[in-house]
Amino acid sequence: MNRYVIIVAGGKGLRMGSDLPKQFLPIGNKPVLMRTLEVFRKFDANLQIILVLPLAQQEFWKQLCEKYCFTVEHVVADGGETRFHSVKNGLAQVKGPGLVGVHDGVRPFVAVEVIRNCYILAKQYKAVIPVIDVVETLRHLTDAGSETVSRNDYKLVQTPQVFDVELLKQAYAQEYTPFFTDDASVVEAMGVSVYLAPGNRENIKITTPFDLKIGSVLL
Amino acid sequence: MNRYVIIVAGGKGLRMGSDLPKQFLPIGNKPVLMRTLEVFRKFDANLQIILVLPLAQQEFWKQLCEKYCFTVEHVVADGGETRFHSVKNGLAQVKGPGLVGVHDGVRPFVAVEVIRNCYILAKQYKAVIPVIDVVETLRHLTDAGSETVSRNDYKLVQTPQVFDVELLKQAYAQEYTPFFTDDASVVEAMGVSVYLAPGNRENIKITTPFDLKIGSVLL
Repeated sequence: MNRYVIIVAGGKGLRMGSDLPKQFLPIGNKPVLMRTLEVFRKFDANLQIILVLPLAQQEFWKQLCEKYCFTVEHVVADGGETRFHSVKNGLAQVKGPGLVGVHDGVRPFVAVEVIRNCYILAKQYKAVIPVIDVVETLRHLTDAGSETVSRNDYKLVQTPQVFDVELLKQAYAQEYTPFFTDDASVVEAMGVSVYLAPGNRENIKITTPFDLKIGSVLL
Repeated sequence: MNRYVIIVAGGKGLRMGSDLPKQFLPIGNKPVLMRTLEVFRKFDANLQIILVLPLAQQEFWKQLCEKYCFTVEHVVADGGETRFHSVKNGLAQVKGPGLVGVHDGVRPFVAVEVIRNCYILAKQYKAVIPVIDVVETLRHLTDAGSETVSRNDYKLVQTPQVFDVELLKQAYAQEYTPFFTDDASVVEAMGVSVYLAPGNRENIKITTPFDLKIGSVLL
């Protein structure tokens, strides 16, 4: 069965207080994005990796790959206006049937075991997402103010979210709405339910200087 | 106006894979709990600090204080069966009117500005809690499975939660129920609403070895 992953790196880096988009910032002397690709290559030597990058960053990425002698094989697709459009562009590069994961480029600390488990489960369930417990107390904002809710009734969602290729293509053929916050929500809009698998807590999204500091520890 | 803080350190340390309760584990050569007390002393030289510790740990804490030449003035109250009972024991040491904060002993990275702001707002609002945004996608578990919810409708709750002394004493005179997950929920059970103030993202709870690693970076 063919296995694909679409790695989405659309970040403009504005939140980092840096001109360099966050996916290119180095953690332990290597850009975040390269570490992300390496984890997926480690998971599967035959995985077909599709990297979605804004057109304006593609030349820079090519230069980075030369500079770092980066040899993880992958194809590049053009980033779109929103994450939805970026994933859709990536999906257009998926030529056969099989399983396709969608992963945030700025999540280099996903565990190989988490990736593997999601792909295995996706064979059976067609739509699988990794989640972790909420460890803080959670409040729900209401019209009247806010209320405590039971954190046990909630999960935090990570990536890779892994799907049957045909299913995800059908889902992304739908018209875009701003309610599509992740791939699971796009698939759910068709009435398909997603299966929850365990994520790993270290699988953080590197979006602030604070995350970058944590990331350097996680190495 | 008198200002108090009850610092709750009830951890048995079981989750740390260590015999030492987590509040005593060192971050940068100093026990977590000492760092927590120091932040509150930095906020206010006249703050009355009440430390709630399990009876079985009090002698050990005393020895630690000697070993580290720890001079932040505080009184010790006995830990109870649950967090609710621990806070109640701490409250019994609050002798006058004023404002009282309740803070997790294993949150040494709360910003002084966050503490200050919560106490200032509590003068007006009587019940103030620091919160931060949810940055991950959030799912709500339902009887049928799970559903995506808008993370913008939720906040993660931190401490110190700061209250009018009289109000918090009334709240803690209520009978205990397991729905009391934090002090805000105890106060809300009386029909009082709480005011949300900004927390700081570094204000993490040190409960796993992973957190301890992050903590060492935050120094």
